[in-house]
Amino acid sequence: MTITNHQYRLAARPVGLPKRSDWNYTEETLRDPADGEVAVQVLYLSLDPAMRGWMNEGKSYIPPVAIGEVMRASAVGRVIESKHPGFAAGDLVFGALGVQQYAVVPGKDLVKVDTRIAPLTSFLGTLGIAGLTAYFGLLDIGKPKAGETLVVSGAAGAVGMVVGQLAKIHGCRVVGIAGGPAKCRYLVEELGFDAAIDYKNEDVKKALREHCPRGIDIYFDNVGGDILDDALTQIRRGARIIICGAISQYNNTTPIKGPSNYLSLLVNRATMTGMVVFDYMDRYPQAVAEMAGLMASGKLISREDVVEGLETFPETLLKLFKGENTGKLVLKVAD
Amino acid sequence: MTITNHQYRLAARPVGLPKRSDWNYTEETLRDPADGEVAVQVLYLSLDPAMRGWMNEGKSYIPPVAIGEVMRASAVGRVIESKHPGFAAGDLVFGALGVQQYAVVPGKDLVKVDTRIAPLTSFLGTLGIAGLTAYFGLLDIGKPKAGETLVVSGAAGAVGMVVGQLAKIHGCRVVGIAGGPAKCRYLVEELGFDAAIDYKNEDVKKALREHCPRGIDIYFDNVGGDILDDALTQIRRGARIIICGAISQYNNTTPIKGPSNYLSLLVNRATMTGMVVFDYMDRYPQAVAEMAGLMASGKLISREDVVEGLETFPETLLKLFKGENTGKLVLKVAD
Repeated sequence: MTITNHQYRLAARPVGLPKRSDWNYTEETLRDPADGEVAVQVLYLSLDPAMRGWMNEGKSYIPPVAIGEVMRASAVGRVIESKHPGFAAGDLVFGALGVQQYAVVPGKDLVKVDTRIAPLTSFLGTLGIAGLTAYFGLLDIGKPKAGETLVVSGAAGAVGMVVGQLAKIHGCRVVGIAGGPAKCRYLVEELGFDAAIDYKNEDVKKALREHCPRGIDIYFDNVGGDILDDALTQIRRGARIIICGAISQYNNTTPIKGPSNYLSLLVNRATMTGMVVFDYMDRYPQAVAEMAGLMASGKLISREDVVEGLETFPETLLKLFKGENTGKLVLKVAD
Repeated sequence: MTITNHQYRLAARPVGLPKRSDWNYTEETLRDPADGEVAVQVLYLSLDPAMRGWMNEGKSYIPPVAIGEVMRASAVGRVIESKHPGFAAGDLVFGALGVQQYAVVPGKDLVKVDTRIAPLTSFLGTLGIAGLTAYFGLLDIGKPKAGETLVVSGAAGAVGMVVGQLAKIHGCRVVGIAGGPAKCRYLVEELGFDAAIDYKNEDVKKALREHCPRGIDIYFDNVGGDILDDALTQIRRGARIIICGAISQYNNTTPIKGPSNYLSLLVNRATMTGMVVFDYMDRYPQAVAEMAGLMASGKLISREDVVEGLETFPETLLKLFKGENTGKLVLKVAD
């Protein structure tokens, strides 16, 4: 059977926000899997702030996507043909399938997904890279103790919402920073955060002072920029800052804004630590099992913001940088 | 006996580099010590970059010096009269005596100095706050391992020279950053650093790449600014950055320059940690004993840059910010 596959390939390295012309939408015939390979139909694509970094040239924790290459993306899909003993047609799998309708990949790069423990899309969010980032960043670097105050930025995003909920489970006072009253209401009313700060309509520094009367013990940063600086002014002695991302800076055409208040680390004997979730790969299964259990018991809410249609990819990706998504942004490619 | 005492008092909060008019040189009669107090003649004053911070208003790790107050300074001196059972006239002591010729202070705030183990001025440098800062910052936060590469800025200063020498003792490759060829020669030829970078005449980023071919494992930062940013571009995975000071920024009249390259912490899973030496007070005696032993055996060289005359204080202090001192800057007040 001949299958026609469509994909988005990187056409140019974007300057600022990625434009339509930075992409090529291409069509080709899917090749047959070779020995050890698996052909997969992509069902849902994970859209992540980190994708913006992969489009840039230069050394990072992962090589850049080459010009002309299919854009890198995590996804869940269904096996349509397998030449790997570990997979059979019909299996649901997770892997780096790319922004396309179908992918042929080595079986060793796929993991099976068990939809008996959680819905399929949650494997891209709370039980995927975003949730794992939250889990290891918070627990291994943040080391939350009951009674401490945690602040998380990008709080209504895929990572932030898990950070806040896990911190509540560990007995912290949790304050989220998000854009707009709807997201802030969601954090407090649905996810049980103690307070939320609407950075689009509030003075963040003042609001942090108000909602963190004892100061900030843990600041989980997804956004960088002015909000990181505001948080630095309110940290307590021995505070831990987790640098998970800096979405406010990813589309800069000027140099990144470094944290002017970084000397607060000195005054407060505080630590700022960067993390990349891939370092914790050997502990993924245990973390997924734990979070799936929390989801099943209703203690951890997973939310995905699902947009339909592969062809919308260039515009849908921008929702992340405009702060338009609540929860994990997912692109539905097929049923 | 009536003793006339002279002192420098803070007259105004400086904007930028402290000027003569920011000080009042005053004269008063020394009062007699009350019960529990000790009168001390100041012999040598410690001049420290941190003094600039104490002149500013606002919260820090220590309260600011008030307008009209004698400028805070560590010093060594000789007891001239004691109403504290632990001290007798003639004892040599260390304490926060202030920028003046004589001080009357509670005996409990003084420690005796034993010049049999090391020369008097070294108790203001290598065996004083500077050396202790180097010791605990390097060993407790930097955690050096043999074979690692350490870079230290302000390398020819009181803290930096001890950091580099201790790191060599722990088996590290040591690269110092300092201003001018004379300091750089001193670091390599006298102190045994593996390399030195003259930030006034070299491209620091390029030189770091050359002298740290495997990247930087530990960066001990005394200066902040562009050099911190350059170091961030060359850190290795798991690097530790110790934020000890930021002398390049202390006299800014514009906002502090934050490290634009801080996202290198993320890519490299690195940590940036602030430290204040006072947190290690209970371990001072052990560290002083260890460093005095290293000095006695010739493995650790202590150097002081001694300027004479209390009245020169306003100008002598500026040597720190102009990078004119090699070794610990000390003001000789009396023999």
